Amino acid sequence: MKQYIETNKERFLEELFSLLRIPSVSSLEQHKPDMKRCAERLVELLMEAGADEAAVYPTTGHPVVFGQKLVDPSLPTVLVYGHYDVQPVDPIELWHSDPFEPEIRDGAIYARGANDDKGQLFMHIKAFEFMVRQGTLKHNVKFILEGEEEIGSPSLAAWAKENKERLAADIILVSDTTMISESVPSINCGMRGLSYVEVKVTGPNKDLHSGHYGGAVANPINVLCNMISSLIDKDGHITVKGFYDDVVELSAEDRAKLSRAPFDLEEYKEFLDIKEVKGEAGYTSLERTGIRPCLDVNGIWGGYIGEGAKTVLPSVAHAKISMRLVPNQDSETITRLFEEHFKAIAPDYVKVEVTPHHGGNGFLIPISSPAYKAAEKAMTEVYGIEPVPSRGGGSIPILADLQRILEIDPLLMGFGLERDTIHSPNESYLLKQLFAGMEAIALFYRYY
Amino acid sequence: MKQYIETNKERFLEELFSLLRIPSVSSLEQHKPDMKRCAERLVELLMEAGADEAAVYPTTGHPVVFGQKLVDPSLPTVLVYGHYDVQPVDPIELWHSDPFEPEIRDGAIYARGANDDKGQLFMHIKAFEFMVRQGTLKHNVKFILEGEEEIGSPSLAAWAKENKERLAADIILVSDTTMISESVPSINCGMRGLSYVEVKVTGPNKDLHSGHYGGAVANPINVLCNMISSLIDKDGHITVKGFYDDVVELSAEDRAKLSRAPFDLEEYKEFLDIKEVKGEAGYTSLERTGIRPCLDVNGIWGGYIGEGAKTVLPSVAHAKISMRLVPNQDSETITRLFEEHFKAIAPDYVKVEVTPHHGGNGFLIPISSPAYKAAEKAMTEVYGIEPVPSRGGGSIPILADLQRILEIDPLLMGFGLERDTIHSPNESYLLKQLFAGMEAIALFYRYY
Repeated sequence: MKQYIETNKERFLEELFSLLRIPSVSSLEQHKPDMKRCAERLVELLMEAGADEAAVYPTTGHPVVFGQKLVDPSLPTVLVYGHYDVQPVDPIELWHSDPFEPEIRDGAIYARGANDDKGQLFMHIKAFEFMVRQGTLKHNVKFILEGEEEIGSPSLAAWAKENKERLAADIILVSDTTMISESVPSINCGMRGLSYVEVKVTGPNKDLHSGHYGGAVANPINVLCNMISSLIDKDGHITVKGFYDDVVELSAEDRAKLSRAPFDLEEYKEFLDIKEVKGEAGYTSLERTGIRPCLDVNGIWGGYIGEGAKTVLPSVAHAKISMRLVPNQDSETITRLFEEHFKAIAPDYVKVEVTPHHGGNGFLIPISSPAYKAAEKAMTEVYGIEPVPSRGGGSIPILADLQRILEIDPLLMGFGLERDTIHSPNESYLLKQLFAGMEAIALFYRYY
Repeated sequence: MKQYIETNKERFLEELFSLLRIPSVSSLEQHKPDMKRCAERLVELLMEAGADEAAVYPTTGHPVVFGQKLVDPSLPTVLVYGHYDVQPVDPIELWHSDPFEPEIRDGAIYARGANDDKGQLFMHIKAFEFMVRQGTLKHNVKFILEGEEEIGSPSLAAWAKENKERLAADIILVSDTTMISESVPSINCGMRGLSYVEVKVTGPNKDLHSGHYGGAVANPINVLCNMISSLIDKDGHITVKGFYDDVVELSAEDRAKLSRAPFDLEEYKEFLDIKEVKGEAGYTSLERTGIRPCLDVNGIWGGYIGEGAKTVLPSVAHAKISMRLVPNQDSETITRLFEEHFKAIAPDYVKVEVTPHHGGNGFLIPISSPAYKAAEKAMTEVYGIEPVPSRGGGSIPILADLQRILEIDPLLMGFGLERDTIHSPNESYLLKQLFAGMEAIALFYRYY
């Protein structure tokens, strides 16, 4: 594969860039035509790579792309999952280059989606192309590429149910996660679930003059701050009633195994430019993201947020709040518990609304499976060291659904790095990782 | 004056509308040319009304308008203060008509500045015009109209110091406040001061993926909420160290006097559509705005605030926070105390910046003065009932400065009503109050 990459590098980049140039932001209505364009471009790339068939399929939301090459029904089948939608780009002013005009700087591609997930799904198309052209493909390969991962995959589960037969496979292969570091390859063996809600706190029915009313009428921003503040206690525990009921405590042995993953706290703090980390008492930083749930405010707004000063006592305040869940916590249950709790703690001088956004459950991957072993062998060969099993803090809610609906385990071979700052300004993906990923994926097929 | 108003009504409204149509928002850089245009229009109106001289004077910020008619040095001199700048119009989507295209609906003018303060200062120009044209003016009258009241009057104090001679007078007459209700005229005998700051809380040096970092790194929005929440305790007391040191407790007698002002809590709650009021324990609603300081968040923002969901752990969170002060509290001292306190309570996993906006001190007006008595008599004649002395919760910080610099007491004859929702969408001013105000002002001159 190394040689093939060397020969085709320029073409590969041009193809990937053609995907990155399409602003397929799934959460913004205005990008609907771009979603379709991006799906169509993927069909072209799959067909060019050697698929027997590939097409855009409508869903109740953004379309999915499905393509496949069936070599022999007796051979094992790999279902590649990826997503072609990307996160919004705000705050746009912090980008050093146009998020939708990819640039290579210092050995990395800078663009929205460079890593998450256009860059990573592209590796699979190219590894597939390599095997087809070399005549070494000994698997049936299917691709399911969706356009709604960043908004919680509202349509794919239903589509998968209706197309269960078509999606039948032995393993769901996914590259949409990170490795611990360039020198410490790792394979994700578990992901957190997600519950994401938006809350609205209403005080008076109109914006008021803060001089005339300040002190006598509850200010919904102050109230929202009080309510948010009460959601996490001083030990970092989430106070939502029943929140921890289904959290499985790991055994000391399991915790010890996970703690083998190298982690340098000083480097971590330096990378983020923070003096101290903060989290649940009694757990390490890796455990806090790997095996423990958490609650974060992802956005807050209310009152006057323009330049200068305005003496307003606003009518409403809003926040977007998400909870990362660990396997065995049910996303819908947690969303319901949050809603009940948030309404229960609302003082009677405000009104409160809670609107669920998306969510999904976490899951675990058995590290003793043949697929995991094949991935381990492939990565050892590419990186020269055995990969560490790790637990990612992020969520790919749809994977738990696909696992349940299709009855197939996922396998997460992610090649992203912390430095890629996905979801943030200046998302990037190292060329080194892009090419190493292609190699490792091709090797996975050899050993699986 | 009644007859004069009847005859000139149409012209009055056309003149006032010409002021309201100019979007003189002092806090927004883009409206700088409008500020000048508005000042020039006021000069025209003053000259047409009968001033000997009127002109636009530059300051370090937006210009001031000064005009006067000197009748006889032996007569008392009235200095009319007003401001021609207005608050921003956001949230613009809640306006039922263009904020800068005045409309009359149900007997009220709807426009930004209809009351605050273009409508109210206009009454003074017309009462003055009436007296000039009728030959009944028995006072020297000076007008000082500034363009920076809504941003804390950063330039007027310096200008007043340099022009102390020119501004010499016996009383500063101001209409920039409200009456208790249409049926309960009142005269403001004290206003609160103001300290207004903006705070910025920085966590990690970049926006992060909330899945990869959530639970392990302090989220600046959550931290800001905690910090804001801690600023007010459960009894509604502000926790900033030293905050109450200079607050003068009113005697039981003084509190009893102020409590004579009629106040219907049920009506108040209904007007605001709230189930309960909220404020400092041990004080009534009127006391909470009249004689007690308070702290309000006027704006908050951070993270993703667009449509849909984004799983970001943001780098920064911001808030605009103001404190209303009572007489004897010094605005600069409070701003300093706030800054010290806010930095002291910042946990070491975030960085905190505090930027002061504007501020000013509160003040009291002696109700035994001849000017107050004259205003009382004038309002009794117009409304048929004796006005109640009241304590407004708002702030006109510059008045405390002018009082100190010019050594003249202010007198606040305000004709606004709660229903006018100044600083909010759909600001309005009742025509009835506009005309009653002109009448009362003309009568004030008769009795002063």
